[in-house]
Amino acid sequence: MEKKIITVSREFGSGGHSIGEAVAQRMGVPFYDNQLITEVARHSGLSEEFIRDNEEYASHANSFLYQLAMSAAGTYGYPSVYQKLYDAQTHVIQELADKGPCVIVGRCADFILRERPDCLHVFIHADMAHRSAHVLERYGATDKPVEQRLRDKDNRRRNYYRFYTDREWGVCANYHLALDSGLLGIDRCVELILLAAEPGQ
Amino acid sequence: MEKKIITVSREFGSGGHSIGEAVAQRMGVPFYDNQLITEVARHSGLSEEFIRDNEEYASHANSFLYQLAMSAAGTYGYPSVYQKLYDAQTHVIQELADKGPCVIVGRCADFILRERPDCLHVFIHADMAHRSAHVLERYGATDKPVEQRLRDKDNRRRNYYRFYTDREWGVCANYHLALDSGLLGIDRCVELILLAAEPGQ
Repeated sequence: MEKKIITVSREFGSGGHSIGEAVAQRMGVPFYDNQLITEVARHSGLSEEFIRDNEEYASHANSFLYQLAMSAAGTYGYPSVYQKLYDAQTHVIQELADKGPCVIVGRCADFILRERPDCLHVFIHADMAHRSAHVLERYGATDKPVEQRLRDKDNRRRNYYRFYTDREWGVCANYHLALDSGLLGIDRCVELILLAAEPGQ
Repeated sequence: MEKKIITVSREFGSGGHSIGEAVAQRMGVPFYDNQLITEVARHSGLSEEFIRDNEEYASHANSFLYQLAMSAAGTYGYPSVYQKLYDAQTHVIQELADKGPCVIVGRCADFILRERPDCLHVFIHADMAHRSAHVLERYGATDKPVEQRLRDKDNRRRNYYRFYTDREWGVCANYHLALDSGLLGIDRCVELILLAAEPGQ
C-alpha cells in the first residue's frame, strides 16, 4: 500500500525538519511542523506561546507539582491544561491525516497515527558531532555548551514521548525506517524515505 | 564514502538473513552468516557445535555460575571459554572486513566494526505477526508457541549484545539504517540498503 502520510520523529539537530520539508516538496503534499501550533491554538483556545513552550516537552511530566495537578484535575473530572494541549494535538493530527497525504514532524504523530495502514513512520538521528555543527549553524551559540543543549532537548522529547505514549523514543521497533542523517546525509535520507513510501507492498 | 561492508543485525524471524544474502548477491561480495562458525572454529579450536549453541546467546551471561566462572578465570589470568569464543568472533570479523567488501550477519559485528568509516550498520525488525509467519514457514511449529520462541531468542540476543557491547540492542542510534521488513517487504529492504550504501557522502 502506498504510504501517503509520513511522520518524522527526530533528534534535535539531526536535520529532521529539513528532510521532512524536502520529502513533502518532492511528494507535492503539505508539510506540518510549526504550522501545527496555529492549528492546535485554534482548536484548543490555548495561546500559541503556551503551545510553543510546552508541546513536545514534558519537563512538567516529571515534576511533583504536575503529578499533583493531574491527580487533582482527575479528581474533579476535568483535564489539566497539559492534557488539553496533548488532546488538541491528537485531534489536529488525526484531522490532517484524514484530509489527505502530508508530512508531519514530531509531536508523537507516529504514535497517534499508529493504527493507520497508510503511514510511514520515520526516525532521524545523528551523532553529536553532526548535530552540534548543524545546531550552531542554524541557531548560533549560546552560553550553554551545544552538547548540553542537545542532550537537554532530547531528554525533554524522550520524557514527553514516554509520558504520553508509554513507549520508548528512538527504539527501532516504533518506526518503519530509522536513518542516521550524519552518515547518510540529508539528500540521501530524502531519497530513502521516498523509496520506502512508494507503492509496492 | 562508499559503504563496502554491510553489517546486518536482526530480530529473529525478520528475514534479516535473506535480506543480507540478497544484498551480498547484488553487490557481488561474500556473505557471512553461518559460514562464520567454521572460521571461528578454525581460529579458536572450539567445536562448531559449541559455537553454534553459544554464539549470540548469552543465557550464560546472566547466570551466577557464569559470573563465578568469569571471575575465577580472571583470578587465574585466563579467559573463560565464552570470552574465548567472543574474542575469536571479534578477530574473525575484523579479519574478514580487512579482506574486502562483504555482508556480515549478527554477532555484534556493528559494534566490533564501529570505528571503520566504510561500514553501513543495518538493523532489521518486524512485528510479531510477520515474524511468526516467517518462522513457521521456515522452521515449522514446535511444542513452544511461536511468539514465545521469538521472545526467547530476541531476549537472548539482547542479553548477549548488552553483555559484550554495553549498548542496547535495537536502539536506532546504534545503526545507520533500521528497517521494518514486515511493512516494507524483503525486496524493498534490499533496495533501501543498496541505496544507502552507494557512494555520495
